[in-house]
Amino acid sequence: MLVLHQMQISGNCYKCRLTAKQTNTPIALKEYGLHDGMTRTPEFLAKNPNGRVPMLELEDGRFLPESGAIIAYLAEGSKLVPQSRWDRAQMLQWMFFEQYSHEPYVAVARFWLAYAPKEQLEAKKHLAPEWHAKGNAALGVMETHLKSHDWFAGNSYSIADIALYGYTHCAEEGGFTLGDFPAVSRWLRRVAEQPGHVTMAAQW
Amino acid sequence: MLVLHQMQISGNCYKCRLTAKQTNTPIALKEYGLHDGMTRTPEFLAKNPNGRVPMLELEDGRFLPESGAIIAYLAEGSKLVPQSRWDRAQMLQWMFFEQYSHEPYVAVARFWLAYAPKEQLEAKKHLAPEWHAKGNAALGVMETHLKSHDWFAGNSYSIADIALYGYTHCAEEGGFTLGDFPAVSRWLRRVAEQPGHVTMAAQW
Repeated sequence: MLVLHQMQISGNCYKCRLTAKQTNTPIALKEYGLHDGMTRTPEFLAKNPNGRVPMLELEDGRFLPESGAIIAYLAEGSKLVPQSRWDRAQMLQWMFFEQYSHEPYVAVARFWLAYAPKEQLEAKKHLAPEWHAKGNAALGVMETHLKSHDWFAGNSYSIADIALYGYTHCAEEGGFTLGDFPAVSRWLRRVAEQPGHVTMAAQW
Repeated sequence: MLVLHQMQISGNCYKCRLTAKQTNTPIALKEYGLHDGMTRTPEFLAKNPNGRVPMLELEDGRFLPESGAIIAYLAEGSKLVPQSRWDRAQMLQWMFFEQYSHEPYVAVARFWLAYAPKEQLEAKKHLAPEWHAKGNAALGVMETHLKSHDWFAGNSYSIADIALYGYTHCAEEGGFTLGDFPAVSRWLRRVAEQPGHVTMAAQW
């Protein structure tokens, strides 16, 4: 069976669990602590030199890091990847947008404001205005798209929606106000209504 | 003909030109200035609400932003995309690694230290140690991989190599020392020897 090396509260790891569930791919989970340094041990770094989870372990011992690559691997050939070349390009566009323009602000604000040890937050909290300005800009880009589209790539739910759902649905933990983005809020409800949806907290 | 909205000295835009050249895709270029604000006008934001280049314009007026999505779109079905599902997953792994763990430090250091107006650098230069630490960490991850592999995905040159070449080959402009990474330096030479290679400065 595939093993997902993960942290339950990481949105990047949640994307992988949700994709596995919605592609009917059996996976086992290996949990890491948020502050235990277990992704930086020599043993872990031999598997992923970048020292991060999520990381997917194949049955034959190969390892695949990066949530975007993992969800694309799990979803290949399924309904979660659009058929047309253009729609697939748009899917990747939004997945790269998420990792470059959204996650570094929306997810990072959530981590530091809701999950980091209080004594470490002190050295970081001067960055909060930048996280919120750039995170709100990313949510604004999503809002603009969703005013005239139900989904991010083509006319159906895809891994682009999963990628953006991962940290958007819990953005209020980072101090964002989702009520300011009504089209985003409606899209969050559509995603949560998809067959096979599981919440971030769902146990395996 | 396809039109690439771009800045010549942007590594993200260079990746798109290099992919177009090596897939024999004719493109025209529309150049933007580094400091002219033309990617933030209402007219541009109607095309890409995220206000960035590169952006590919199709013949029918559709627009595709995000360098990773553009090079995947241009290379689809070519030798620059591996055949196997696993190799394609690795290709995406390194493309996401580049945008998340490499570009925000290696490219950003180059921009601020080599291209930004001096008076704006003052407010940013306290970040240089972080850019260099995290950028060197990313180069170290590449070095580890390249000690035992010629290419990033599978056994051949792919758009993962193009994605990582874009800002690695000019990293010394940002204060990085490529001589510290001998396997990376050898890989840079292999990439530059590929058929149809063009330099970042090459005019169209």
